[in-house]
Amino acid sequence: MKFLCQQADLSSSLSLVSRAVSGKPSLPILTNIKLVATAGRVQLTGFDLSLGIQTSFGAEVSEAGEIALPAKLLNDIVSRLPSGEITIEQNDSQNGDGIVVTVKSQTGTYQVRGMDATEFPELPEPEDGEIQHLPITALIDGLRGALIACSQDETKPILTGVNFKLEAEKLEFAATDGHRLGVVETFLEAEQGAESTLELTVPARALRELEKMLGGKQAIEKISFSLGEGQAVFAWETAHGQQQLITRTIEGNYPDYRALIPSSFGKQVTIDRKQLVSALERIAVLADQHNNLVKFTISNENQSLDLSVEAQDIGSGRESLTAQVSGDDIEIAFNVRYLLDGLKNINAQDVAINLNGVLEQVVFSPVGGAKTIYLVMPVQIRG
Amino acid sequence: MKFLCQQADLSSSLSLVSRAVSGKPSLPILTNIKLVATAGRVQLTGFDLSLGIQTSFGAEVSEAGEIALPAKLLNDIVSRLPSGEITIEQNDSQNGDGIVVTVKSQTGTYQVRGMDATEFPELPEPEDGEIQHLPITALIDGLRGALIACSQDETKPILTGVNFKLEAEKLEFAATDGHRLGVVETFLEAEQGAESTLELTVPARALRELEKMLGGKQAIEKISFSLGEGQAVFAWETAHGQQQLITRTIEGNYPDYRALIPSSFGKQVTIDRKQLVSALERIAVLADQHNNLVKFTISNENQSLDLSVEAQDIGSGRESLTAQVSGDDIEIAFNVRYLLDGLKNINAQDVAINLNGVLEQVVFSPVGGAKTIYLVMPVQIRG
Repeated sequence: MKFLCQQADLSSSLSLVSRAVSGKPSLPILTNIKLVATAGRVQLTGFDLSLGIQTSFGAEVSEAGEIALPAKLLNDIVSRLPSGEITIEQNDSQNGDGIVVTVKSQTGTYQVRGMDATEFPELPEPEDGEIQHLPITALIDGLRGALIACSQDETKPILTGVNFKLEAEKLEFAATDGHRLGVVETFLEAEQGAESTLELTVPARALRELEKMLGGKQAIEKISFSLGEGQAVFAWETAHGQQQLITRTIEGNYPDYRALIPSSFGKQVTIDRKQLVSALERIAVLADQHNNLVKFTISNENQSLDLSVEAQDIGSGRESLTAQVSGDDIEIAFNVRYLLDGLKNINAQDVAINLNGVLEQVVFSPVGGAKTIYLVMPVQIRG
Repeated sequence: MKFLCQQADLSSSLSLVSRAVSGKPSLPILTNIKLVATAGRVQLTGFDLSLGIQTSFGAEVSEAGEIALPAKLLNDIVSRLPSGEITIEQNDSQNGDGIVVTVKSQTGTYQVRGMDATEFPELPEPEDGEIQHLPITALIDGLRGALIACSQDETKPILTGVNFKLEAEKLEFAATDGHRLGVVETFLEAEQGAESTLELTVPARALRELEKMLGGKQAIEKISFSLGEGQAVFAWETAHGQQQLITRTIEGNYPDYRALIPSSFGKQVTIDRKQLVSALERIAVLADQHNNLVKFTISNENQSLDLSVEAQDIGSGRESLTAQVSGDDIEIAFNVRYLLDGLKNINAQDVAINLNGVLEQVVFSPVGGAKTIYLVMPVQIRG
């Protein structure tokens, strides 16, 4: 194998696929990334047996071939090389050194020990399923709105993922950890629609990587995806070529979260989202010292929402905010961290808070904007 | 105690003095900062029994007084308050709540439990010693050049500090951990001079805080300092008033580091500092995997400096740099981390490397610029 490429192309590709390389893998080969050089292109793959990331870039390939190279070491060296041309060449293995490549740049020459690419496990082969297209903004909204509500508890694996539900032209993202629920409804690219209803659950870790990979790339407009038994594939085009993320799905039936969402509410508060977030962040300073609880006092007469916190032996705080209130007055308490997680992710100027009783589900949703629900269970106020 | 001030003044002062508040203090009172309100001014003090930081700002004081308040909690709340006016008022203690203050801003009211200010230990009283003045750039150069060579080893306390030597119009900063030595010679403000020679050693922790506090403040031109038995005081003027850092010194005699510096050298290499640093950073990727060693191969014939690293079973690397070389060829090895520490801190385009034999002290110094020495002991090359 021998090719010549630009440092910037190799470096950005290495850092992308390295996201799928585990720090403590189950097999030594998985600390590596796989390089495959074919006519005019080099493809890189990182894979941790659950999540795989693949990308490719243009290169002058003078000798096709494939090899597995240590991801971190190669990334650390290449990212520090000066910009310009780099040559990567596999040494003649006849001299008994094993598999070694030479990385050459303007001033320096590095030799790095690699492994046989045939030891690198194959990515799950994408099924010949339907390929759907989603606007990138819809995907990002969906991921953000659901990921915040994923459980960290590995004893209930199904809750550590995001549930995808594809139905006609609609794709719904949902996640719950039992205390809160995030649901975002998005729509496929115009004139598309799924032939059959499909539902599966994708690990949060893979989706967090997907969100990071796409978050900064405003140039990408849409993403294609296919959901199949046991796996999901997300793919998108960049200026350099196609990139894709393949992930295994989580087995099991996702709970019927729709049943948790009340069909009607007796009270509603509409309030400026940023003001509410700032006030909650101050309240959280004291709440974090005690039991994380913040009390909402909602007054129809004053058209106000007061937040208060009591941290015994430390201090107390109160914030008064103007709000549009309909329905009866209520005092209701929440875990302040759950509220901040959800409210920071709602993409709207104003937020609507929909309530019934003091121990019933409360739903936060943006006024205007995406169809997003963030449902939180209140906490009983003692004493 | 009652005063009205600007959120920005209180917040920046709190974060400044909080640098001297230890996370795990030996006495509960030391988690607090002390507030003293007098006519038109509020003074804040943080102190961990070794390092003290003091600042003050203008305020409308309607009731003078003093109190100790929890540093982290108060800082966390005040930094999140909206900009504008804040009132701080000590509650009437007759209601049996103990010492409590109320912090009021536009939208919110917070009550924070405090302690009696008389429990707060007094800062060491500055001696009536000579006050010297040093240009801020000289102080920063001195701190940077010496702090990198301080020891982390608490069993030899004297080596965990920076040695200050004041002699006539000269102030010398020095530190060594036994493997390397940093020495910077600076000069007092014009027409100043110390009456007597003075030498003492200041803890690195206090000086690192001083460096951070002054690093971003280009508006400060000079700093005044007084060095006394058992303590050092650094003070400077800001737009808001005087700030000062007081620190205890470390007892003991500092080793005679001047004896370590060779009086003449047989070889010299002059090289672009940034190119050398970049190449060392790449070499360090492999060196860090093995024994941190980098080998310098200096050739008079080629007028070159080659860097090389061998990390067994992992890989190897070589970088070739052009340099001006005088004297015989030499192969000599160093701990790559020691070199990077020193070279990153040298403030010059080119650096001179002065050498004798393969096991003798090597001195790095800027070409032009401050009188700075960074001395490193080489490592024996085996095999």
